[in-house]
Amino acid sequence: MRETSLQVARQLDEDWLNHLLAQLAEFGKLADGGVDRQALSEVELDARAWLIDLARELGCEIYRDAAANLFFRRPGRLAVSPVVTGSHIDTQPSGGNYDGCYGVIAGLVCLKALNDAQVVTERPVEVVIWTNEEGSRFAPGAMGSSAFVNPGKLSDHLGAMGVDGVLFRDALARHQTRFAAIPLRPDREMACFLELHIEQGPVLENRNLPLAIVKGIQGVRWYQVTCHGVSAHAGTTPMTLRQDAMTLAREQLVHIEQAMGDATDDALRLTFGRWQVTPNAINTIPSCVRFTLDFRHPSTEKLAQLDALMRSLSSEHVTVEPLLNKAPVTFDARINHILQEAGEALDIAHTTLLSGAFHDAMYLAELCPTSMLFVPSHQGISHNPAEYTDPRSLAAGARTLACALTELSQSLKGVTS
Amino acid sequence: MRETSLQVARQLDEDWLNHLLAQLAEFGKLADGGVDRQALSEVELDARAWLIDLARELGCEIYRDAAANLFFRRPGRLAVSPVVTGSHIDTQPSGGNYDGCYGVIAGLVCLKALNDAQVVTERPVEVVIWTNEEGSRFAPGAMGSSAFVNPGKLSDHLGAMGVDGVLFRDALARHQTRFAAIPLRPDREMACFLELHIEQGPVLENRNLPLAIVKGIQGVRWYQVTCHGVSAHAGTTPMTLRQDAMTLAREQLVHIEQAMGDATDDALRLTFGRWQVTPNAINTIPSCVRFTLDFRHPSTEKLAQLDALMRSLSSEHVTVEPLLNKAPVTFDARINHILQEAGEALDIAHTTLLSGAFHDAMYLAELCPTSMLFVPSHQGISHNPAEYTDPRSLAAGARTLACALTELSQSLKGVTS
Repeated sequence: MRETSLQVARQLDEDWLNHLLAQLAEFGKLADGGVDRQALSEVELDARAWLIDLARELGCEIYRDAAANLFFRRPGRLAVSPVVTGSHIDTQPSGGNYDGCYGVIAGLVCLKALNDAQVVTERPVEVVIWTNEEGSRFAPGAMGSSAFVNPGKLSDHLGAMGVDGVLFRDALARHQTRFAAIPLRPDREMACFLELHIEQGPVLENRNLPLAIVKGIQGVRWYQVTCHGVSAHAGTTPMTLRQDAMTLAREQLVHIEQAMGDATDDALRLTFGRWQVTPNAINTIPSCVRFTLDFRHPSTEKLAQLDALMRSLSSEHVTVEPLLNKAPVTFDARINHILQEAGEALDIAHTTLLSGAFHDAMYLAELCPTSMLFVPSHQGISHNPAEYTDPRSLAAGARTLACALTELSQSLKGVTS
Repeated sequence: MRETSLQVARQLDEDWLNHLLAQLAEFGKLADGGVDRQALSEVELDARAWLIDLARELGCEIYRDAAANLFFRRPGRLAVSPVVTGSHIDTQPSGGNYDGCYGVIAGLVCLKALNDAQVVTERPVEVVIWTNEEGSRFAPGAMGSSAFVNPGKLSDHLGAMGVDGVLFRDALARHQTRFAAIPLRPDREMACFLELHIEQGPVLENRNLPLAIVKGIQGVRWYQVTCHGVSAHAGTTPMTLRQDAMTLAREQLVHIEQAMGDATDDALRLTFGRWQVTPNAINTIPSCVRFTLDFRHPSTEKLAQLDALMRSLSSEHVTVEPLLNKAPVTFDARINHILQEAGEALDIAHTTLLSGAFHDAMYLAELCPTSMLFVPSHQGISHNPAEYTDPRSLAAGARTLACALTELSQSLKGVTS
C-alpha cells in the first residue's frame, strides 16, 4: 500500500460526509425521516443539479450518457481509463438515507480528500450516479448501469411506463433537456469499478464489524409453484377423497426444504415469500395454492441442483415456473486484495461477505474489474426510513474507499487479477 | 313396519317431485342453471307464496312464526304434536337446485302421497321451511331453526345487516306484512323432526349408494393461528438470523397434522383453508402468516385433544384464536331404527354417515328426537350450480321419508329412544 493512499484516507473529511448525506436526504424528505426520491423525478433532478455543482466546485469534469447516468471525473495525470466509484440516488417510495446515496456521497468525499492531500493520480478518478437502480418508478431496476454495460438494452427500456404514468423515454428526455449543457461521456472505458454500499443485512452488525469486502453476488432463482386441487366442503369430504391443494403445497415446500436446506451452509438463502390460496375460505378445501421460492447461493452447482429439483416437481397437479435466473457474480480478486490491505493498513476490522442483494456492481462486473465494500445496516433494515448506519462505520467505509481508489488510480497496470 | 307406511311410500309421485324441484328452481334462476334466492328476498317470498298455495291445495293448515318459519300441517286424527320434516329454500348467491329445496319439496310430495293413499295418521304431519339457513344474506346461518328452538335468540338477530344493506328486522317485517293472513303456529311442540338433504360430500356416490341414514353431526372447531416473524430481505438475511413467519407457520401446520392426522380415521376432517401472508412479496421474509384450521370429529375426546393441542401452540410468536366451537350431535336412535327398517322394507341400499356440514336438524336435536337422511351429491358438489342428484336417488330418499313419516305419525308413543 502506497503511503499516498493512506495519506488520502487519513485526509477524509468525516464531518463533510455526514453533512452531505444529511443535505442529500433533504431532496424528497418525508415527515417520518425517510425519503421518496424516484428515479428522474423532479426532486431527483434537483438532487442531481446540487451534486453537479458540488462536483464542479471539486474541479471535476462532468459527463452524462444516453441513460442519464452522470459521471464526475477528477482528471489524472494521463488521459487513460478512469478508476470509478459510485452508486445511485433514487430511493424506494418509503426509502432511507443511505441505500445508494452513501456510495455516491462517499465518492465525492474521496475526491475532496484527494484534493486536500494534493495528490495527482495517474488515472482519472470518477464518481458515477447510476439511473433508476431501485426499479420502483420504472421496472426493471439497475436500468442505468445495465444499459451502460450493454448499450443495446436501453431501447428495450424506453417504453417502460412509470408507476406515475410517465414513460421512461419522456423522463429521460426531461433529464437531457435540463442537463443539455453537460457533454456526453466520450467512451465507455473504465479501468475498474468499486461500489461502497450499506449491507442491507444483519451480518456485520451481528458480528460487530464496521466493514466487509464483498466477494461476489449470489446467484438467484425465483420460482413460482402452483398446486392444483379440487375445492370441496371441509366438513363433508373425507380425507381419502380429497385433492387438497394446500396439502400438495406443503409437501412441495417440505420437499424443497429437505433437499436444499442445510443449517451449516452460511451462504444459503431460502424464502417462500408470496402465497395465494384459492378460494381462501375457512371451510373450503383449497383448489389452488400458488407460492414463490426465492433461492440464493454462490455455487453454480447448488443452483443447478435446485433447477433440477424444481423441474422434478412438475406433475399433473404441480406447475413450476421460473421467474428469475441470475448467475452468481465473483468480484475481482486483485481489487479485493487491495481492499484487504487498505483495511489492515488503516486498522479497520473487516470480514468478507457475499452480497445477497443486487447492485449496479453486478452489471459492471461484466465490463471491468469490479468489487464492493459494505458497511453495517442497523438490524439489517433497508428500503425503510429506519435504515441506519453509525457514523464511525460510514467513515471506516469511506476511508477504505479513498485508500483503494488512490491505490488503484496510481497504477497503470491492469487491475484484473 | 306397518303396511300403511310402505303403501304411502309406494304411492309417492316421483314425477311430481322432479316437476316441483324444477318449478322451485325458477325462483331466482341464474343463466348458468344455478339459483340465487337469498333469505327473505322478494324472489324467496314469491317462492314461499307458491309453496303456500301448493300446501293449501293439499289440504294443509298453514302457520308462520316470529322468525318467518313456515309450517304446512296435514292434520292427524288427534290434535297432538306433529311429526315434522322440511328444510330451507334460501340458497347461496351462486347456489344449486337441491340444497335445502329437496327436503322441503320431498316433504310436500310425502303429504300428497298420504292424501293419495287416503291415510289418516294419528299425529299431524308437518312440512317446515326454515328461514335463512345459508347465512349468505344475513349472518349467522340457521337463524330460523335456532330461533325456533331458542326463541330468545331471535332478538339477537334483529339487528343483523344483510349483505344488501337491509336489516333482518326489516326483512322479517316485510314477510309478516305479505303473509299477515297466515296465523302464528300455536306452540312449539314437535313429536320429532326428520330432515332429508343432499349429502354435500362424495361418500355416497363413491360407494354407489342412493341413501344414508345420518348418525349425527360432527363436532367442529375453527381456529386461527397467527405466526409473528420479522420481515427482512430474502437475499441479505442469513437463515440463522431470520425470524421467518412462514417457517413458523409450516412448523405449526406439520405439528397439528402429525398430532391429529390419522389415515385410518374415516370421521376425521382437517382443513387449512384460509391463508394471509404479510407482506407477501417474493423477496421479503414474511413478517406475519395467519392461517385457519377447520377440524371436525364426532368424538368429544378427539375434539378436546385438539383444543389442548391448540392451546399448547400459543407462544411469544404464535397466537391461537378459537373462531368456532360446535359440539357433536348424535341423532335419535329410535328414528334411525325406523329409517333402517324403512330402507330395508323398500329395498333401498343404504349406509350410515356422519354429517360434516351443519343443518337445521343440528338445532332441532336440542328440542325433540331428530334425525336426517342423505342422498348422493354428484362429485360431492354443493353451493354451486353444478349441484346434482340423480332422480332415482331423489325418489329413494323421498320414499324412505314418506315411509318413516307415516310410521312415526301412526304412533302415539314417544319417539325418543
